[in-house]
Amino acid sequence: MPYIPLPGHLPGITGLLEYSKVTAHPIRVLTQFLLRGENSLTEAERELIATIVSHNNECRFCTAAHTAAADVLLGESETCEMVKQDIDTAPVSDKMKALLKIAKLVQISGKAVTPEAVALAKSAGATDVEIHDTVLIAALFCLYNRYVDGMNTVAPADPAFYKGLGQRLKEHGYNRLPNGYDHLKKENQPS
Amino acid sequence: MPYIPLPGHLPGITGLLEYSKVTAHPIRVLTQFLLRGENSLTEAERELIATIVSHNNECRFCTAAHTAAADVLLGESETCEMVKQDIDTAPVSDKMKALLKIAKLVQISGKAVTPEAVALAKSAGATDVEIHDTVLIAALFCLYNRYVDGMNTVAPADPAFYKGLGQRLKEHGYNRLPNGYDHLKKENQPS
Repeated sequence: MPYIPLPGHLPGITGLLEYSKVTAHPIRVLTQFLLRGENSLTEAERELIATIVSHNNECRFCTAAHTAAADVLLGESETCEMVKQDIDTAPVSDKMKALLKIAKLVQISGKAVTPEAVALAKSAGATDVEIHDTVLIAALFCLYNRYVDGMNTVAPADPAFYKGLGQRLKEHGYNRLPNGYDHLKKENQPS
Repeated sequence: MPYIPLPGHLPGITGLLEYSKVTAHPIRVLTQFLLRGENSLTEAERELIATIVSHNNECRFCTAAHTAAADVLLGESETCEMVKQDIDTAPVSDKMKALLKIAKLVQISGKAVTPEAVALAKSAGATDVEIHDTVLIAALFCLYNRYVDGMNTVAPADPAFYKGLGQRLKEHGYNRLPNGYDHLKKENQPS
């Protein structure tokens, strides 16, 4: 049960974004830019960053949602699972391994990020912008995970829910409102 | 030394907001609404929430900046200091004590927030919106602290720097650009 009355048909973050539209708007704009904006990291790679942070924060809703989004974008579910279990054995580039390790450090604390972790990413070819975006995506999901769990929102048990959500996040990104709220779409679009 | 080249004259978060303007915009809009928008919590009370989270994340820049902002808004520096040391002895309302304790739990993890902590806040008169905003402000500063320290930004040692910043945050809020960037102001205003 959420700690405040949220729309019952909108679990996890979706009810919070509906409850507080004025804060939802900049959160959506920031997420859309970071996870779907033009970037040398693919959308799937950025969803893996969101997933590893949510997983380490033990946020059930966000982990399941972004796992589903990464899986849909990759067309398979093994990579995401392996990233969660052991980054070094996951079938991602050395650059992505280094960036995912930075994301894991950000999840612990900003101060946990070491010059060595950053140097490793740079030597694997990561650009300054990629390092910046990795840190900011990881920090953003530390916000999301705390918002979702700090308000005690509901995480559906049915895997089909997240599969549908992952598909929607692939097709429509983060500006899209949940099903049934399309009439509100215009006012929620980034300016 | 920051992990990526940031404007040398802009320490802490200010250099990051300048480095990445497209992400800075929604972050500023969200912060302005949460910390300066119309709210039954005073601006000083919301700065105390930002301060306790930054303090517990051991983020030097953010702690000093929001301590300074709270001090300027309160007209004294004892309250903020006591909040950092021991919430129960601080000269704030019982409602604020309960909300500050929720913020401290959010700093640890969203899952650390207990029904008891929320019930205590409600019994002390906290509204649903106040609880929501406390959790989201605390989550937002978990983002800020990780962004600032995860990029290894510089925190000036001179207390006068933060005093000036606190004054500016009181007078102009979070849409205002740092000194010397006023010519960019218009494009950075919330829509």
